[in-house]
Amino acid sequence: MANIALLGYGTVGRSAADLLTRASDRLAAAAGEPVTLQYILVRRAYPGSEHAPRFVTDFDAIERDSSVRVVAEAIGGTGAALEYCRRALAAGKHVVTANKQLIAEYGHELTALARERGVQLLFEPSVAGGIPLLHPLRECFGACSVREVAGILNGTTNYILTEMRERGASYDAALARAQELGYAEQDPAADVEGLDAGRKTCILASMLTGLRADPAAVCMRGITDIRPEDAALAACAGMSIRLLGRVIRAEGGTAVFVRPHAVAGSSPLCRVSGVTNGALVRAEPLGEVFFSGPGAGGEATACALLSDVLEILRAPGRPQPSVWSGEALPLLDPDTLPMRWLIRTDEPAGRLEAALGALRPVRTQEGVCGAVTGTMTRRALDGAGLRLKAAWPVFE
Amino acid sequence: MANIALLGYGTVGRSAADLLTRASDRLAAAAGEPVTLQYILVRRAYPGSEHAPRFVTDFDAIERDSSVRVVAEAIGGTGAALEYCRRALAAGKHVVTANKQLIAEYGHELTALARERGVQLLFEPSVAGGIPLLHPLRECFGACSVREVAGILNGTTNYILTEMRERGASYDAALARAQELGYAEQDPAADVEGLDAGRKTCILASMLTGLRADPAAVCMRGITDIRPEDAALAACAGMSIRLLGRVIRAEGGTAVFVRPHAVAGSSPLCRVSGVTNGALVRAEPLGEVFFSGPGAGGEATACALLSDVLEILRAPGRPQPSVWSGEALPLLDPDTLPMRWLIRTDEPAGRLEAALGALRPVRTQEGVCGAVTGTMTRRALDGAGLRLKAAWPVFE
Repeated sequence: MANIALLGYGTVGRSAADLLTRASDRLAAAAGEPVTLQYILVRRAYPGSEHAPRFVTDFDAIERDSSVRVVAEAIGGTGAALEYCRRALAAGKHVVTANKQLIAEYGHELTALARERGVQLLFEPSVAGGIPLLHPLRECFGACSVREVAGILNGTTNYILTEMRERGASYDAALARAQELGYAEQDPAADVEGLDAGRKTCILASMLTGLRADPAAVCMRGITDIRPEDAALAACAGMSIRLLGRVIRAEGGTAVFVRPHAVAGSSPLCRVSGVTNGALVRAEPLGEVFFSGPGAGGEATACALLSDVLEILRAPGRPQPSVWSGEALPLLDPDTLPMRWLIRTDEPAGRLEAALGALRPVRTQEGVCGAVTGTMTRRALDGAGLRLKAAWPVFE
Repeated sequence: MANIALLGYGTVGRSAADLLTRASDRLAAAAGEPVTLQYILVRRAYPGSEHAPRFVTDFDAIERDSSVRVVAEAIGGTGAALEYCRRALAAGKHVVTANKQLIAEYGHELTALARERGVQLLFEPSVAGGIPLLHPLRECFGACSVREVAGILNGTTNYILTEMRERGASYDAALARAQELGYAEQDPAADVEGLDAGRKTCILASMLTGLRADPAAVCMRGITDIRPEDAALAACAGMSIRLLGRVIRAEGGTAVFVRPHAVAGSSPLCRVSGVTNGALVRAEPLGEVFFSGPGAGGEATACALLSDVLEILRAPGRPQPSVWSGEALPLLDPDTLPMRWLIRTDEPAGRLEAALGALRPVRTQEGVCGAVTGTMTRRALDGAGLRLKAAWPVFE
């Protein structure tokens, strides 16, 4: 019998509690033993709930109960969640979490603590929600060299960008609609400014390199300045504007960044629409593998969280599988990477070609003008002396 | 030090041998110990090869060498490959294989033998080549209930269908081109008649249910009767004709079948083009997760094969993770499943609607006529007394 303590009773916590109680047969079959939800840590009790007998308001009860093997953290943030995860690991309990901020900021400390204490800390749902991504990256690519991971890792911004492209909605209207549907928070800053995707990208970078990608050091741009005419221009070029988090391993360092890209129609990322997440893994000599699926939502996140619980219960003696040191990952400035660019500009085609070389002009029916350039760095593009209204790296 | 014996030196064998020798540092890091290619079983020696010192022509040498921990089978078929896999497992050696025929036909026997002998038999590359699919299905979906897997599992037929759709090529011309490019065998029967995809679908079904899906009992149709006008009609309906292998778990049984489908444009499977493979997993309450990537090719297959080697070396004491019994999986006749249909027919729209109810007529610029029906079984469609030139279930 494996006793589980759940921390938090928000969207993810409730879904996890429901799944733990309703799918207990399936979980027991997968774990090879009964999996029991023993405690739910809440700030206040919910008297009418079917889970009422499991509610506790003090983490001490969980920490002291040696029968609790796995703590599932669904509080979020780096306050209580950090404290409880530290204490759980120190007490010799495995921890699973969906908390990207916690792992992005304290993953180096917590994974090292897990290894030291002979327990495991897994965090599959912290990146790309319900899509199995971290697990396959860790377990299935060992024979190859992963050169790049590029992902649509934030469903809120992808929903907004999809609305802008497919309905010509303004940013404000699309955001309001996302809020109405519950896809965006009332304070959407962490999503729309790229921080949420950036944290997830840092987790990917840290996992892949074994060194800490610090969210504070990583270039993150959001989508707040994307306009409907940008979406239209990209569509006219056969592309979609998408907020990509990228980890690119190159000579001399790793580029880790989040910014809107013009994703070419030939890429499977171009067609990841709405709140769906997607990630493309480029590995040598394997080639490109693409994953997509539900990036958020209580049930999908809870599935990934409990999948981590099952992984631990099936291999309880395994040493912590992902550890990265606190040493800073040497970061490559993304502006030094050669890429093609989709630019929006009113400069005449002749002047563009004179400055940038051969390019493909783009002009929407509404008269929005731009071009797709050849391969050059952002620095070279900026140094060409052109008046650009916007420029997005082309992802292909 | 983990000694590996490779059986076979064809496309996959050569790639695996190259990867084992050239990526030895990476493999050692991933395995936690050096991984050494000790033997390559060949029918005749290749004197000039860099691997010459490793060639053996007699399996006995491998079987008797107790230092060989993992046997990687890359012979194919069910002759020598079956014999050597049996002997390797019986001798207490782990086995990895890319051989879908072997696993589809003898997986029940070989997985049971592995479990009995306390070793592991892994076969990730046998389905969807280089895409991590079997591993995530096994390890990452335990908290949910997998209701369906639908996949484009054969690159040859997908290349042919893509050529027909995108260039209007005839089946014969597209096949000839595939042969020219090395994507199709000189005798393409196993690919184009659906047997290859069928074997892979049987492996998925057996893994998911724990019961044997016998390739001989499973309905497999290929693409030999698809015509360019079919591809055009599907395109006009916003769909693509794709050969799908499907495992659908329903009340009363499991439908396991391979046949051409009209894949709706909203499905990520619609845009899996050329030799790429793709698979969609539907799980409750998780939702839909999609995987795509290289389904064949020496290097991609070798990566997946060696990824299985690494998985074994990291968890050598783990019991065989996928076992299915020899008992036959109760199969549901796919013709009893309610689906929408894309039909090609010259029947007038009025007569179609009178017989089938509301439908969406489709007519290409070249005058190819058809319709997308409402939801009904194949039996109901066939029983409507209409002259249909072709009918494909709609996958959406």
